Parts: sequence; structure tokens; C-alpha cells
Amino acid sequence: MAVYTEVPAEELAEFLAAYDVGTLVMAKGIAEGVSNSNYLVETTRGRFVLTLYERRIDEADLPWFLALMGHLAGRGLPVPRPLADAQGRTLSRLRGRPAALVEFLAGVSLTQPQAAHCRAVGEALARLHLAGRDFGPPRPNHLGPAAARAIANDLGDRLDRLEPGLRDRIRRTLDQVERDWPGRLPTGVIHGDLFPDNVLFQGGQVSGLIDFYFAATDLLAYDLAVARTAWSFTPDGRHFLPHHDAALLEGYAQVRPLAPDERAALPLLAQAACLRFLLTRAQDWFDPAPGFVQRKDPLAFARRLRHHAAPAPA
Amino acid sequence: MAVYTEVPAEELAEFLAAYDVGTLVMAKGIAEGVSNSNYLVETTRGRFVLTLYERRIDEADLPWFLALMGHLAGRGLPVPRPLADAQGRTLSRLRGRPAALVEFLAGVSLTQPQAAHCRAVGEALARLHLAGRDFGPPRPNHLGPAAARAIANDLGDRLDRLEPGLRDRIRRTLDQVERDWPGRLPTGVIHGDLFPDNVLFQGGQVSGLIDFYFAATDLLAYDLAVARTAWSFTPDGRHFLPHHDAALLEGYAQVRPLAPDERAALPLLAQAACLRFLLTRAQDWFDPAPGFVQRKDPLAFARRLRHHAAPAPA
Repeated sequence: MAVYTEVPAEELAEFLAAYDVGTLVMAKGIAEGVSNSNYLVETTRGRFVLTLYERRIDEADLPWFLALMGHLAGRGLPVPRPLADAQGRTLSRLRGRPAALVEFLAGVSLTQPQAAHCRAVGEALARLHLAGRDFGPPRPNHLGPAAARAIANDLGDRLDRLEPGLRDRIRRTLDQVERDWPGRLPTGVIHGDLFPDNVLFQGGQVSGLIDFYFAATDLLAYDLAVARTAWSFTPDGRHFLPHHDAALLEGYAQVRPLAPDERAALPLLAQAACLRFLLTRAQDWFDPAPGFVQRKDPLAFARRLRHHAAPAPA
Repeated sequence: MAVYTEVPAEELAEFLAAYDVGTLVMAKGIAEGVSNSNYLVETTRGRFVLTLYERRIDEADLPWFLALMGHLAGRGLPVPRPLADAQGRTLSRLRGRPAALVEFLAGVSLTQPQAAHCRAVGEALARLHLAGRDFGPPRPNHLGPAAARAIANDLGDRLDRLEPGLRDRIRRTLDQVERDWPGRLPTGVIHGDLFPDNVLFQGGQVSGLIDFYFAATDLLAYDLAVARTAWSFTPDGRHFLPHHDAALLEGYAQVRPLAPDERAALPLLAQAACLRFLLTRAQDWFDPAPGFVQRKDPLAFARRLRHHAAPAPA
């Protein structure tokens, strides 16, 4: 939530000249995303977001992410469309960093979404999954169970410093997730990180789906599990919100009905989703990246994991 | 350059309901100012900046700053006008912090201003001084020579860690500044911090003068000296820019001609201005406020001081 790379107005004006967007009127560094620098840019022709990609992102992945955003925007989803410069490139460089200019989407991220918002998010996620079906090539999900195992091994018994017994609990859950991972469910483009801060709302409608830098090709039902992890609990993970969860699932299924084996896999995928965020947050907790100010509580996902691991009430 | 206090969209929407500004469309935390949290807010009626005042600012001073901004905006200066809520108050509270909503002004801050920009800044500063003449009551400048002396005493020989001999050099300059401080020059409202990041430009014109939180009542020629310190050197203080300096002075004098005794006092006031920024930067260097990420080089002003202390070329 910071601007890591400062862009002088003079250089920004020069950068914008390569695009067909008019001239610079205003630019503000915005506190958005955790690992990139973002500027809200206004020109005589409209509003845009300029992103400078910082060290946490693999530059080789950027063309895929940008192509995906363009694909989804072209299918009518509220996804920021990357702009091409005079050479037709959506990926450029500014201040020594990879940089992209995308459409600005209005709206606000909610801190306390209601069930109706969850329904709208479920619908939007399903539309994203349908629109992504003809997007290729695939990109492996680098934050699946194998990555979770590697991070857990790397953190070792430091996990028990977060909560006694956590290391073992994670290991047992990982064993189960790996053993029972469903091999034949429908796959496609997943967002991978559809938390409330990555969804914009305006007048109760989803006006923006943003931050595609964890997108990959994986089980579509796993992406739904990530979204449930994000929207169906209070942020601290202490309270499961059954109406929110039901609304999210219903909204999704109305647009893209779940096959019986997808539905059967949801409890396991929910545990996998909890592990992913528990472990990456634990990693940031113990080894924060330089300049990474705000650490988020890993235990918020240990609590969600406990909910999913408990037998459902009769 | 960070957002210290997060404002959930739901609370922001409620906050805005007290103002006659329509409903929330978009809000982004912006990286602006060093000690407050700022949001660019768009409603169905327009654009605004929401500021939450953090601990570095004395809450008792805020009504004066906001009244000054309203006064200057009312006189036609490009200063953000504070909005009054339904109770007529410009100062409110949000998330436990004092908060104000002001007009948004378009434009960009320049990193490499040219002489023409300096002329425009000189003119704008003189207009600010003229427009401030009938604003009262006065507010003492808490960062004048007495404060510089107190900070220098407090830092003691830590100053020599920045540069050998710096403590003595500062002491001698302070002695001279205090001894020769001009007692009878015109006083009035000063901005006190008119650096390039506090001036917005659009199409070569000054479109905004912002950040009035160091404003006070003091010698008008001292404010001009601060502006020269800010605009007439490269940021690192290594190079004096004579054309920039001349343009700034000419722009100022065209709108508000300098009296002979004001002109005679400029060399001393330039030294006082250098001391003020040298010492507050040194203070932040050795005792950074919590969460204060970016330290600025105090020696950038030790270098300027050396320029002003040297005998002028014949």
C-alpha cells in the first residue's frame, strides 16, 4: 500500500506521449496493491491507472497477465483494459521498471460487504471463468499445494511461534489436500486472489475486477474456494458468515452451474485455499520484503482452516 | 507519502452524507504530504481531497489553516477550498482523527521546474501575500529562528555526524541571523513551505497551491526566501540556478514590489530559510517519527547555506 517508485511528472508526460491518450492533467500515486506502484493518471482524454511492477513480480509473467486483462475486458467483463502504445505494446518501461497503462474503473472496495454483494461477486467470478475459457496459453498456478508444501517446509517450526501446534496442523492438512486433490475437475483461467480489495462496487453492482497478478490456470472450483475464503468470513477469520457464503455460491452457480464432483470437492478446496493464504502471509510475517510495511495476520486463515476442518453442523 | 489511517468505503460514504456533495463514486488513498493521510474522493457531484490529520499536526491549529485556505480561495487564489458540512463546520472527525474535505485541484507537481515555472510561482506567492493581508488573527511561526536554535541545541554534536564542523557552522549562522533579524519589514500570512511538491501546474500555469500546514504570520520577505531556497537550487543543493532565482524574484516583484529594506534583508533571510530546513530535516534524520519512511538529506540545505554564506561574485 505504497508508492515504491516515484515518477516525475515530466517523465510521465513523456511516457504518455507514446500512447494515444492526450496530455497529462493530473497524476497521483495511489495506495493500492501491495507489491506494485500505482498512479491514477488523468489526461485530456480520460482516466487511467499506471502500474510500475516492482521486484516481487516475475517480469516474464507480465505479458500473460496483460493479455488476460485485455481478453476479459474484450468479453465485456469489468476488467481494466491495458492500452497499447504506438508500437502496439501493452508492456513498456518507466524509471527502469516494467510499466503498463490500463483503463481506470470507478467504484470502491468494500470493507463490510453484505450478502447481496457476495452474490454479485459470485456471478462476476463465474462470468470471468466462462469468458476465460478460450484464453490461452495456460499458466501454471505457482501458489498451489506444491508451493504451500515448499513454504511450510521453509518456515518449519517458526509456524509454531504463530500458534502452538500450527506446523503439525498444516502438515496434516497438506497431506490430505495432496492425497485427495481432485484431478479431473474443469480447469481454466482463475483470478486466484478475489478478495474484497480486488473488487470495485458502484451502486451495488460490480464495477471492477482488478489485480490479476495471481491469475493462473487451475481448477475453476478452487478459485470459487478462494473467493469463499475471502468473502464468507469476517476478515479476522473469527466468524463464518453463512448468508454471505450461500449468496456467493448461488450467484456463482446461477451463471455457471457446478458439476456434482466440483461441489463434492469444495470442502477440500476450501482447506487448500486457506493454506495458501495462511502460508504466504506467514512467509511475509517472518521474512517481510524490504519496504513492505503492512504485515497481515496469518492466523486469520488458521481460524478459517479450523472452520473448514470441523465437521459441518448436523 | 503514505496512508496512515485506512477509511473503509462504508464509513466514507456515511461521512460524505454530512456534506452536500452527492454520493460516493470512488476513493483512492493518495501518496501526498508526509504527515497526513489523504484520499482522492469522487462523488456524483465532483472531486475532493479528504485529509485525515495524523499526530504530527497540532489539532488546535487546524481551524486557522482551514480558515486561511477558505480565505485565499475566496480571493481567487488556486487554493483548495474547504467544504462545510450541514452544521457549517469545515473540521470534522473520521476514524478517530480530525478530518477535512477540500476541493480537488487538477495539475501536477514538477520535479524539474524551468525558469518560466519559477516566475509563475513568484507571481503566485506575491498574490498569496496580497490576498492574505486582511486575514486574521495572526498565528506565530513556530519554525522561526528561535525554533531553529532549540532544535540545534537539542541535536548538539550529532550535527557533526552529518558533516564535520556543521554544529559550529550552524551556531555561527544562527548568531548572525538572530543579531541581524530585520524587525520592521512587512508581515502577513506566509505559506512557509512553498516547495515544488506543494505547487500544481497545468499547461504552464499554477493550478494549485497546497499544503498550508506550515502557514503562519511572519515576514513576507522570509516566505520569498523560503521559496528561493526551494526553487533556485537543484534538490540536492549542489547547484544554484541563477536564471530560476532571477525569474522567481522578478515574478514576485512584478505583483508585489519589494521595498528596499526587504531586498536588503534577502541574503540574511535566505540563510534563515536554509537553517530551518536543514534543522528540521536533521531532526527527522536522527529521530524519525514512527511510520515515517522517507528521510530527506539534511545536507541538501547545508550546501545551500554555503552558497548564501559565500560572498557574492563581483
